[in-house]
Amino acid sequence: DSAFDPTHQSHRRYNPLTGEWLLVSPHRALRPWQGQQEKTPPDNRPAYDPTCYLCPGNVRANGAHNPQYTGTFRFDNDFAALQPDGPAGGINIDNLLIAESETGVGRVICFSPRHDLTLPEMTPEAIRGVVDVWVDEYQTLGARPDINYVQIFENKGFIMGCSNPHPHGQIWAQHTVPVDPAKETVQQAAYLEKHGRTLLTDYLATELREQQRVVIENDTWVVLVPFWATWPFETLLLPRRAVASLELLNETEKNDLADILRRLTVRYDNLFELSFPYSAGWHQRPTDGQEHPEWHLHMHFYPPLLRSATVRKFMVGYEMLANPQRDVTPEWAAERLRSLPEVHYKQMAA
Amino acid sequence: DSAFDPTHQSHRRYNPLTGEWLLVSPHRALRPWQGQQEKTPPDNRPAYDPTCYLCPGNVRANGAHNPQYTGTFRFDNDFAALQPDGPAGGINIDNLLIAESETGVGRVICFSPRHDLTLPEMTPEAIRGVVDVWVDEYQTLGARPDINYVQIFENKGFIMGCSNPHPHGQIWAQHTVPVDPAKETVQQAAYLEKHGRTLLTDYLATELREQQRVVIENDTWVVLVPFWATWPFETLLLPRRAVASLELLNETEKNDLADILRRLTVRYDNLFELSFPYSAGWHQRPTDGQEHPEWHLHMHFYPPLLRSATVRKFMVGYEMLANPQRDVTPEWAAERLRSLPEVHYKQMAA
Ligand SMILES: O=P(O)(O)O[C@H]1O[C@H](CO)[C@@H](O)[C@H](O)[C@H]1O
Ligand SMILES: O=P(O)(O)O[C@H]1O[C@H](CO)[C@@H](O)[C@H](O)[C@H]1O
Repeated sequence: DSAFDPTHQSHRRYNPLTGEWLLVSPHRALRPWQGQQEKTPPDNRPAYDPTCYLCPGNVRANGAHNPQYTGTFRFDNDFAALQPDGPAGGINIDNLLIAESETGVGRVICFSPRHDLTLPEMTPEAIRGVVDVWVDEYQTLGARPDINYVQIFENKGFIMGCSNPHPHGQIWAQHTVPVDPAKETVQQAAYLEKHGRTLLTDYLATELREQQRVVIENDTWVVLVPFWATWPFETLLLPRRAVASLELLNETEKNDLADILRRLTVRYDNLFELSFPYSAGWHQRPTDGQEHPEWHLHMHFYPPLLRSATVRKFMVGYEMLANPQRDVTPEWAAERLRSLPEVHYKQMAA
Repeated sequence: DSAFDPTHQSHRRYNPLTGEWLLVSPHRALRPWQGQQEKTPPDNRPAYDPTCYLCPGNVRANGAHNPQYTGTFRFDNDFAALQPDGPAGGINIDNLLIAESETGVGRVICFSPRHDLTLPEMTPEAIRGVVDVWVDEYQTLGARPDINYVQIFENKGFIMGCSNPHPHGQIWAQHTVPVDPAKETVQQAAYLEKHGRTLLTDYLATELREQQRVVIENDTWVVLVPFWATWPFETLLLPRRAVASLELLNETEKNDLADILRRLTVRYDNLFELSFPYSAGWHQRPTDGQEHPEWHLHMHFYPPLLRSATVRKFMVGYEMLANPQRDVTPEWAAERLRSLPEVHYKQMAA
């Protein structure tokens, strides 16, 4: 038999959300690894840490005292990359050195008062509290005339540049639409124009029929390893209903979102039996006042680990200069994630 | 005074080579860092390591014996991501799951028989040997009808996923043109069409006039921190003459290239007084048989370190989901690199 075999042959896959390709090398996971081993960070934190600037009642870098919060807690980032004011202006030298002032806001959201928890160990009710904050922040920031895009994300784990293990996420909201959401806007708009449905509505139907890459589902949400996933255990979380942004979710969808977030992150923790690192975040319509019917809300999870708790995927050399490349197939990763229990490994041990 | 001040205000910069933007947050370097510290790898290797699969005379994973080489040494990667054969074919399900078989070759190039050296500690003559191998590999691989792009690169340091400190680089050569060189082809072609000169010819003239971002020069090459640099100490190495690819360099340019590579990498090592990690690689014309007069050969250096030998820049969260972001200005980084000596710190200590 001499047919193309994507489970063993090197091949390229197309990402319709960005219009870009990636290289898949299914056989590469076999190579021996003699390189850097990551540290596995200790995971025995106290419920309250007097030195943590995010714990209730403690003092932050700017001297402010955190309230004795019991659910979520949010504040303006004390070291925000984006600044809310400053004179507008720019540089244009020979049409080659081009810069523009950019304004925006950085927000920090504590997910829980408990220093020792992360999403997979929180209750669905507590996660629902995080969902409500995301909705509210998206609406409040998005309503500002100077904010046209609201990037909600979480960096989890020291390996992802997170400098404090207290469960928290961030929002960077700004005047212009950043590169990746801008690409997704173009691609989704072209698709809607041609087919009359959102790109992700049709993609989801295809994946639900194929079943190869679906990880978990509930009544209103699906998690899958996208056909074009870059990171080894990357997933895409999306609502079955084509809504353009978080504030359009109904009560059932918000509760179901909390449920599926818990189930997904428990599976992630169970994969290598450690608090699983990732960067994750929402992509949704720009808050530029347009309706954006092409936009289908979704959340990307980008976890760095490849083979074990200590061996990561390095996106270096070829990946930085040419294009992303992965060493295992998305189908294999989906199968691994599907095979895992939804009881957290710490609770199983107990 | 209320003019836009790019040394203190957040702003966006445009990369004319890719057509994409990045966010610059000049004030961010002030934030305290309580996150992950990198290990500084030991730098006291023996000249010959009997357990190294790249040292002369040793046995590789596939059982082959390396020759007793005295200059450079190259071979097919024993764990290549790209495979030279396999049935051509693809997948197209609903125009949403799109894949294509991809073929290619992976090559490994040992820069020196000495296990304990890297480029900054090699002689210009020895580096010239590496340049000659790059030229020869580009020509030989590029001449094959099944190879349309030759990506030459080096991953240096464990932090960059390099699994063996023996000085070496890689080549991944393939049938299709990867994403980044494809973007640069489009942008450079549009520029040539409009202006009749290569984009980098004009850009170089602007930078030589401005002098703010130039790091070092010789008669035929210039190193600068590009106006749109993403990584903290990213540099761009380019020839003054607009040549499309490595095999078009003349003798003087090849010698000068060896010279400037040594000077740049010595400065990098001197920055934090350690063997400076980076991914670096050439961008040049596709080997698809077209002339590609729009292409202006250049080499990108992408080093991960930000503040010190142990604190890196994390491209996570916002950067993965929105767009690249940097915490110091390119002008500041160029000034730091300019201020460093060109005698290697190990030799100064001696
Ligand atoms: O080929 P190596 O050195 O084993 O592997 C290294 O470089 C490759 C090409 O940039 C990357 O895909 C790998 O993630 C990295 O570990
Ligand atoms: O804002 P933090 O948590 O201090 O910083 C972290 O997230 C940011 C946004 O993704 C990144 O720019 C930083 O490199 C990373 O260390």
